[in-house]
Amino acid sequence: MRSRPVDVPALVTAARDGSARAVARLITLVENADPALREVMAALAPHTGSAWVIGLTGSPGVGKSTTTNTLVAAFRERGLRVGVLAVDPSSPFSGGALLGDRIRLLDHALDPHVYTRSMASRGHLGGLSFAAPQSLRVLDAAGCDVILVETVGVGQSEVEIAALADTTIVLLAPGMGDGIQAAKAGILEIGDVFVVNKADRDGVNTTVRDLRAMISLGERTEAGAWRPSVEKLVAERGEGRDDVVAALDKHHAWLVEHDVLRERRIARAEGEIAAIALQTLRLRMTDPRRDDNLNELAARVVAGKIDPYAAADELVEAL
Amino acid sequence: MRSRPVDVPALVTAARDGSARAVARLITLVENADPALREVMAALAPHTGSAWVIGLTGSPGVGKSTTTNTLVAAFRERGLRVGVLAVDPSSPFSGGALLGDRIRLLDHALDPHVYTRSMASRGHLGGLSFAAPQSLRVLDAAGCDVILVETVGVGQSEVEIAALADTTIVLLAPGMGDGIQAAKAGILEIGDVFVVNKADRDGVNTTVRDLRAMISLGERTEAGAWRPSVEKLVAERGEGRDDVVAALDKHHAWLVEHDVLRERRIARAEGEIAAIALQTLRLRMTDPRRDDNLNELAARVVAGKIDPYAAADELVEAL
Repeated sequence: MRSRPVDVPALVTAARDGSARAVARLITLVENADPALREVMAALAPHTGSAWVIGLTGSPGVGKSTTTNTLVAAFRERGLRVGVLAVDPSSPFSGGALLGDRIRLLDHALDPHVYTRSMASRGHLGGLSFAAPQSLRVLDAAGCDVILVETVGVGQSEVEIAALADTTIVLLAPGMGDGIQAAKAGILEIGDVFVVNKADRDGVNTTVRDLRAMISLGERTEAGAWRPSVEKLVAERGEGRDDVVAALDKHHAWLVEHDVLRERRIARAEGEIAAIALQTLRLRMTDPRRDDNLNELAARVVAGKIDPYAAADELVEAL
Repeated sequence: MRSRPVDVPALVTAARDGSARAVARLITLVENADPALREVMAALAPHTGSAWVIGLTGSPGVGKSTTTNTLVAAFRERGLRVGVLAVDPSSPFSGGALLGDRIRLLDHALDPHVYTRSMASRGHLGGLSFAAPQSLRVLDAAGCDVILVETVGVGQSEVEIAALADTTIVLLAPGMGDGIQAAKAGILEIGDVFVVNKADRDGVNTTVRDLRAMISLGERTEAGAWRPSVEKLVAERGEGRDDVVAALDKHHAWLVEHDVLRERRIARAEGEIAAIALQTLRLRMTDPRRDDNLNELAARVVAGKIDPYAAADELVEAL
């Protein structure tokens, strides 16, 4: 489609020198699963590993963008470089086409130390499992100290985000039937820091109390285990922001102290490597140029002559 | 966990003889990824291939359960045996624990020719890609003529359902911002029959007109291509039910006439076989008893010594 060749070394150097355009271009290569991606990832590898990845998830309407905004402001006040990756698990468009970057993070639109990117997980090869970790790698190598990954909590997206993040914030709001929501979505297990936004609304104390009760039910009791905290926030006015940031810092210190940071990152890399390897194998299996093995097996399954497990065994053997 | 051995031949025979308990037990084996599953699938294989799988998807609140109910009634009036698989992509519980089969399909609770099962896609190995097609195989072998697969349209669930179904119904309701919803979720591409439920409400004609306009924009023009139809329904009172069923029948006739039914089923079996094969390979890759290859590669990626692609190449080589 694009005939212009990608000058990977120049692009990586520019991204590391602070060019937002170069960063954007690299993430576009990620999104397009560009053939140059292998070269890009190889060039980025030595420069990765320093960013703190914070996941932020919650139901629609809890105020994820506003919360991201206020956290970005807090980290910027410390002089940190911040990346924001907003993942929309339902949109088939990239670049946040429907609502878009235009209304997102307006507060920081002109700040050269804030990189913002919206990304649709749908329609990407492998969804989040490919594009998101590689985009994090781009932002990490570009010198981001903190990367906020924001996603709406539907389907499995929040579990996928938690798997990507060093620290996961679960955002709630009063009066949204949070108790049931939390139990249903299994978010209790993924949250390191719970934030009840819109804390100026009625019912905030009930929500906080219910959450604390539910968390303590599932709490790990061994010495040194992390105890998730619950913080109140009015993101629109920045009220409670410092408490949230303090809770995040505390979690980061815990991660480092117990060597969990490294463990989580190795687990994350394992997932990433396995996903790429499986994709390679998937393409090999389904490549019509290789042979019609899969198609023949499928025809036999449809005809009831063989079951899918036996067919899969044959397929694996043939690789 | 369970020590009672599974007598697979007896269970399959009982399921084929119409035992709802045996069907339920087989689907539980599927959900638990029971070791006996290979034997089960091998025993079912010769008896599969006759069920017509109809997917039904829509946003929360459009009336999916009521619509399923009324369609089940219509198929039962024809004397057909009907299976219903309700997939909840957000619940970590199985058996529909939160709302449950108890309030679902009450109309047909005592009908021995209707099998109903709720199923959570979350927490299952591979999600829908494993449990759903195998459950369909159970229902198919148990003699269901029609199987309705119902799921709420969030994340990628409706695309996954469409991939499983011979015919896909997209359900909408007036006044829910359907236009944008449809465009956003990419449902236009997956619907074979669009049904506007709650058609006694204001705005139904606008919704139908908007939908028709959007469908015609994306319509395939070659001779013989399927033209998705838009039907109105008041599922609660059964109004419009016969038009919906007629549209479904028309689509089924089209599938058969153009040999698309077989093509779709082969494509579905290809996906199923590939998913099982990839799962086998994934387990092989991540099996800690084999060796610590993946873990070592991940540690090198985290240390920035190697990039994930190069690591994945090494992993595939080692298989």
